[in-house]
Amino acid sequence: MTTFAAPPVGVSLADRYGAVRDLTETLASPLSPEDQTVQSMPDVSPTKWHRAHTTWFFETFLLSPRLAGYRERCPEYGYLFNSYYEAVGARHPRAARGVITRPGIEEVAAYRRHVDDAMAELVDRLQRDARADALDLVELGMHHEQQHQELLLMDIKHVLSQNPTRPAYRDGSRSRGPAPAAGWVEHPGGVVDVGHAGDGFAFDNESPRHPVLLVPFAVATRTVTCGEWQAFVDDGGYRRPDLWLSDGWHTVQAEGWEAPLYWSRDGDGWEVFTLAGPKRVDADEPVCHVSLYEADAFARWAGARLPTEAEWEVAVGPDVDGGRPLDLDRLHPTSDGGGPGQVWEWTGSAYLAYPGFRPAAGAVGEYNGKFMSNQHVLRGGCCVTPGGHTRPSYRNFFPPSARWPFTGLRLARDL
Amino acid sequence: MTTFAAPPVGVSLADRYGAVRDLTETLASPLSPEDQTVQSMPDVSPTKWHRAHTTWFFETFLLSPRLAGYRERCPEYGYLFNSYYEAVGARHPRAARGVITRPGIEEVAAYRRHVDDAMAELVDRLQRDARADALDLVELGMHHEQQHQELLLMDIKHVLSQNPTRPAYRDGSRSRGPAPAAGWVEHPGGVVDVGHAGDGFAFDNESPRHPVLLVPFAVATRTVTCGEWQAFVDDGGYRRPDLWLSDGWHTVQAEGWEAPLYWSRDGDGWEVFTLAGPKRVDADEPVCHVSLYEADAFARWAGARLPTEAEWEVAVGPDVDGGRPLDLDRLHPTSDGGGPGQVWEWTGSAYLAYPGFRPAAGAVGEYNGKFMSNQHVLRGGCCVTPGGHTRPSYRNFFPPSARWPFTGLRLARDL
Amino acid sequence: MTTFAAPPVGVSLADRYGAVRDLTETLASPLSPEDQTVQSMPDVSPTKWHRAHTTWFFETFLLSPRLAGYRERCPEYGYLFNSYYEAVGARHPRAARGVITRPGIEEVAAYRRHVDDAMAELVDRLQRDARADALDLVELGMHHEQQHQELLLMDIKHVLSQNPTRPAYRDGSRSRGPAPAAGWVEHPGGVVDVGHAGDGFAFDNESPRHPVLLVPFAVATRTVTCGEWQAFVDDGGYRRPDLWLSDGWHTVQAEGWEAPLYWSRDGDGWEVFTLAGPKRVDADEPVCHVSLYEADAFARWAGARLPTEAEWEVAVGPDVDGGRPLDLDRLHPTSDGGGPGQVWEWTGSAYLAYPGFRPAAGAVGEYNGKFMSNQHVLRGGCCVTPGGHTRPSYRNFFPPSARWPFTGLRLARDL
Amino acid sequence: MTTFAAPPVGVSLADRYGAVRDLTETLASPLSPEDQTVQSMPDVSPTKWHRAHTTWFFETFLLSPRLAGYRERCPEYGYLFNSYYEAVGARHPRAARGVITRPGIEEVAAYRRHVDDAMAELVDRLQRDARADALDLVELGMHHEQQHQELLLMDIKHVLSQNPTRPAYRDGSRSRGPAPAAGWVEHPGGVVDVGHAGDGFAFDNESPRHPVLLVPFAVATRTVTCGEWQAFVDDGGYRRPDLWLSDGWHTVQAEGWEAPLYWSRDGDGWEVFTLAGPKRVDADEPVCHVSLYEADAFARWAGARLPTEAEWEVAVGPDVDGGRPLDLDRLHPTSDGGGPGQVWEWTGSAYLAYPGFRPAAGAVGEYNGKFMSNQHVLRGGCCVTPGGHTRPSYRNFFPPSARWPFTGLRLARDL
Repeated sequence: MTTFAAPPVGVSLADRYGAVRDLTETLASPLSPEDQTVQSMPDVSPTKWHRAHTTWFFETFLLSPRLAGYRERCPEYGYLFNSYYEAVGARHPRAARGVITRPGIEEVAAYRRHVDDAMAELVDRLQRDARADALDLVELGMHHEQQHQELLLMDIKHVLSQNPTRPAYRDGSRSRGPAPAAGWVEHPGGVVDVGHAGDGFAFDNESPRHPVLLVPFAVATRTVTCGEWQAFVDDGGYRRPDLWLSDGWHTVQAEGWEAPLYWSRDGDGWEVFTLAGPKRVDADEPVCHVSLYEADAFARWAGARLPTEAEWEVAVGPDVDGGRPLDLDRLHPTSDGGGPGQVWEWTGSAYLAYPGFRPAAGAVGEYNGKFMSNQHVLRGGCCVTPGGHTRPSYRNFFPPSARWPFTGLRLARDL
Repeated sequence: MTTFAAPPVGVSLADRYGAVRDLTETLASPLSPEDQTVQSMPDVSPTKWHRAHTTWFFETFLLSPRLAGYRERCPEYGYLFNSYYEAVGARHPRAARGVITRPGIEEVAAYRRHVDDAMAELVDRLQRDARADALDLVELGMHHEQQHQELLLMDIKHVLSQNPTRPAYRDGSRSRGPAPAAGWVEHPGGVVDVGHAGDGFAFDNESPRHPVLLVPFAVATRTVTCGEWQAFVDDGGYRRPDLWLSDGWHTVQAEGWEAPLYWSRDGDGWEVFTLAGPKRVDADEPVCHVSLYEADAFARWAGARLPTEAEWEVAVGPDVDGGRPLDLDRLHPTSDGGGPGQVWEWTGSAYLAYPGFRPAAGAVGEYNGKFMSNQHVLRGGCCVTPGGHTRPSYRNFFPPSARWPFTGLRLARDL
Repeated sequence: MTTFAAPPVGVSLADRYGAVRDLTETLASPLSPEDQTVQSMPDVSPTKWHRAHTTWFFETFLLSPRLAGYRERCPEYGYLFNSYYEAVGARHPRAARGVITRPGIEEVAAYRRHVDDAMAELVDRLQRDARADALDLVELGMHHEQQHQELLLMDIKHVLSQNPTRPAYRDGSRSRGPAPAAGWVEHPGGVVDVGHAGDGFAFDNESPRHPVLLVPFAVATRTVTCGEWQAFVDDGGYRRPDLWLSDGWHTVQAEGWEAPLYWSRDGDGWEVFTLAGPKRVDADEPVCHVSLYEADAFARWAGARLPTEAEWEVAVGPDVDGGRPLDLDRLHPTSDGGGPGQVWEWTGSAYLAYPGFRPAAGAVGEYNGKFMSNQHVLRGGCCVTPGGHTRPSYRNFFPPSARWPFTGLRLARDL
Repeated sequence: MTTFAAPPVGVSLADRYGAVRDLTETLASPLSPEDQTVQSMPDVSPTKWHRAHTTWFFETFLLSPRLAGYRERCPEYGYLFNSYYEAVGARHPRAARGVITRPGIEEVAAYRRHVDDAMAELVDRLQRDARADALDLVELGMHHEQQHQELLLMDIKHVLSQNPTRPAYRDGSRSRGPAPAAGWVEHPGGVVDVGHAGDGFAFDNESPRHPVLLVPFAVATRTVTCGEWQAFVDDGGYRRPDLWLSDGWHTVQAEGWEAPLYWSRDGDGWEVFTLAGPKRVDADEPVCHVSLYEADAFARWAGARLPTEAEWEVAVGPDVDGGRPLDLDRLHPTSDGGGPGQVWEWTGSAYLAYPGFRPAAGAVGEYNGKFMSNQHVLRGGCCVTPGGHTRPSYRNFFPPSARWPFTGLRLARDL
């Protein structure tokens, strides 16, 4: 049994909390203490840091301020496991997370249990006292932890990829048949509403829901495949400056890019490193681990463009299956009938505030709003996104040079 | 006589060409050979490079391909004075423009005359043959040169600011009375059209004109003043991370920013370096030489936000006086009744393609489109913008950390 | 029982091999898998890398070429655990040793056993066949491993020092009474012989023994103490450029040095981080973890100079007690009667070839000779040097900015 | 008339001062204001900076402290033109010398005249008052200026070499016939005296004269030629790590070295950039512009080594012709019968203090002593060394990676 679905509706908060927390430990379980300690580049965090940081989040924003008599596990953890919250004090430098050997993974597990025990008590009290604002913070912490579950998998993939022995995180079956034929879905444009609607959880950056005026456009019925990407490579896509944004071209040259991250030449073809180890590139799979720069260049080469995030939300969003469980046997994108959710899809939209956006009050207001510069929005979710975590209005974001997330693209064009 | 207006309507193309070319030389004339040679940071270009590059533009895109029998002045100039056009070949590295001592300024002047003589002949022929596309390129070259006139002044200001003797580019009178009282202009929102309209010249990035849906909003009746900025500084604006975008806060700390570029402590107050040398900061003047990060933090501190470029275009754009002549006695922003045109105004909009944008064909298609990442749009023009160069739909753009252009801001808010 | 002496004379090579190999494992035993994986700066190597690299040395230089039928444990280890031997092929980048999570410490232990089993067989054969050159390589490998034992302790100290929880490697008693009174020993100068003499093991860089002409000089009877160093600090030693070499002064400013590495302010006094955790600085202890630049500046401040390596060898060398066992209860320098062997002592001599120096043949010729630039010689041994490893002619070497070895100094002066 | 000899003995100090000062201006005279302003890398200084700094030396160390009523030309010059004298105050950052456009070359000339006028008065007074210590400072200032004459030529060569138009500093005839046959001069070793002897001027680092014990050795009768260097290149010298010091090999790879600085491929052969512009490499000329790392690798390849500075001084020093005039027609090394003085010759000796070395008192004590780390000694002088500037005991020094000085090598070997 290797799939991990979101708990069904009706399950208690305590049980849902437990399910989220358990999945983190399940994801870490194939990893040795050594695996869990390393930071292979500044963007990556060690597995044990993810496990501790998500715990610190509950301790800092819920237990310390709201549970009488709660004692912090260790005074230095507030410094070591704060990610970027300026309002809660100084923190260990991000790029140096990989030099911390202690606490080790056993103590991190104990820290998690310590916090989980206290959270059980706190959640019970909050529910009895109907403290909606605090219960919303519990929900936020759970969704926060789900984000880190995905980061944990992205990050350990990068860590393992540095090793010349090319170790696998976990064996996995992979293929799901051929890519569906490519087609276009047309949309007449006009004023549409985008942003989070309804009662369920959403991050602050998905609100307020608001009208946007669209031109008539079409979006592709599926994401770009590895086979299509190979044609781009074979056509000199990485050697033709006319296809690239200026910053992208500089990056191509400075980094020596000639294919997506994790691809390497293998005789006449290409090999790709996956969480199940290296394998031949499968032409039918969605291309993955490309930057915005590459996605934009590919689209130009193909005579198309990237969709805006509003276009994506109205034309592709309804196909999002946020409830699909995470399948540990399939930690690599598959063709899967062409639906979204295998790779995060770059959009042409810069990550900026929606009209009328207000960050959440307090330190958690730093969660999303302060990153609204130098990033692009991605939509849809990917093969390592936990079940129940994504939705049509979900706005993921990364800098345009980022390639280590599970990033791909879908074409669009004007009508 | 120190103002340089755009030639009035009805003036011949040849005369307008001559007027633009002459202004460049007028702007360079107070500068010694030494002044014209130095590059004080990679973003800055030497004065003599600007003079030669604008000349190379006409040589490369008009004379070489279209004037039979034209001989290039020097074969290496194509390498030395290409800025960023990948399609026309290799080029000298941008950051190394300041190590080129030859050609010196006399030869650069001769190069300009050489090209101007040939251009006179070519323009005459193109007009007789009614070659509209080529004549459009002549117009583009003239607007290109006007952009470099502004860059020349921004750049030499930075060069001179590095010198502990604090030399002036040119003496100048400065003040124009008190800032007008601040107020707000309200706009009901709804669907508006933005982008270039009409027959006059515009860059490709201003098109196509297209509808945008706006929320109801208000914009300030004038830009933020130095006095208001001092209040921000005094309130710890540069020391409060809650006011800043994350990238902005990192920049503040890495660069040690504590005031706008060119401000320095002077006893209890502040001094500012200008093209006329150092002077006391004048509380009534528009604040200038702030980054997008600073502008954004100020707006947050003030309980407001930056306008989007569409809001700016419909609410402030009509006040743009594109024909105001460049006044060499006033190369520093003044209060000037509060109208736009003293400082480039940061907007909250990332610099991206308009819906349906198509770059110009050929190498000049690299002019604008390839820079559409990691930049923000600025609007309005500034005190060193040549007369006739700006217009309401004009989209200037710089990275969010840039401070050496003449950049300021105007507040906006939701209604 | 926590001291580890060199095996007495008469012990078999196999037993001595075993004793050396065992000590490495003993030194690693207090360290968790997480501790053993981290590289806190490029100069530092992970503990498990030291354990594997010393094993690779025997595998590469002895087993693979000389033991028929030997199978390498893993083909990638030749790449992962080569330190700097160009002649034996490509290798993993030094600065990236800390991103390798696998092999983990269990597999490293198995690798060590695999090699040790084969070495037992090989040593037996080599002795029966009287293969002196190969047996010399076994000796070299053992001395090589002893060097890495010291490096392992230096390196883990740096790793642990990065942790805000300030963890100890191991508890330890520390103090050994007051520093002896300072005095001078005079030497008449003249022609003396320096370099390795006699039959025992020495590295190639200690030969040939050769005459050197010395001026009359005096050397201090003990190394500089922490108390003396505090007087230097209190006298502004780190703020007076007149005391420093130019490169040293640049380093002081760039790095913000104001005391030895591992010292931090503690109220009015100083605290020092040790392998047994933090403690107050003890004025009687030898100062440790200072660079050549600091040692040179201190000597100038004291009106003295550093000894040359030849002066040190003839005047201090006879006091070297190379056989003193490593004491795990005392992994911090102590006053210890003033004899050498508590801190490596910087000399004023650049690390260069002795007249007539010839590197060893083959790849092991890269051991010492190729590092003869940009380094200074240190003499004597330190509190974490294994028993039996040092001798009067031993030439240790580090760049002048290095502070993470256990480095101190002794003064000298002309007569 | 293009040679500039040292003034003959018996010429007055005032006349010798004038001759030195005039030569600087002669060397600068072919250079435009643009040429004189640029700094092509941090090691290089602009020509006008050399002209001003040498003037500042006289102003700071002689006129300001010793000439009553002297007024400094400009208060900021003390900041702008201090090179590295910590004792006389803050200074402009070395790497930013090329961003200073003013004073321009006319004002620098006026500054020189201002100081020369005052120096004439001061020298006269000092002589009348027989102020020997101050007169020694005048001598030091003159030798200092001669050093900068050589630096000026090295530096402008580097500046001009950056220009794709490959401009010449000055035309020049070049060749002087074939290289003499290579041979060896043997020396029996033993105790010899090295260091400055006699009454003439010498820098502090050449003293005290002291005995050194040498092994029997041989030195080559001439320096290594370009033809010999080509054989090294052709034999893969730049691709064989076994030939290189470790730091050297890292530098070769990081910098992509495959030949001496200023060499570039020209069909099957090599071209070299000179102060007279590019020309074919002449196999008979001494190789020039090689680093210590390259010199050391070449020597190893040739089965030899570099001489120590003491060996050089006793075996080659007597052939130094310090009085040979600088010849502006020959600013490139020539075979010239094989004598020293065409290229500075790297020695195997680190630049360290002689036994008993005492720096000069006062700020000028920073002249030499503080650079005694991370450098190697070079001996002999080169084709751009001013007449009268060098002598057998002269110790030049550069870091082992430096290639922009006129550096070559001579082989040595043990007997």
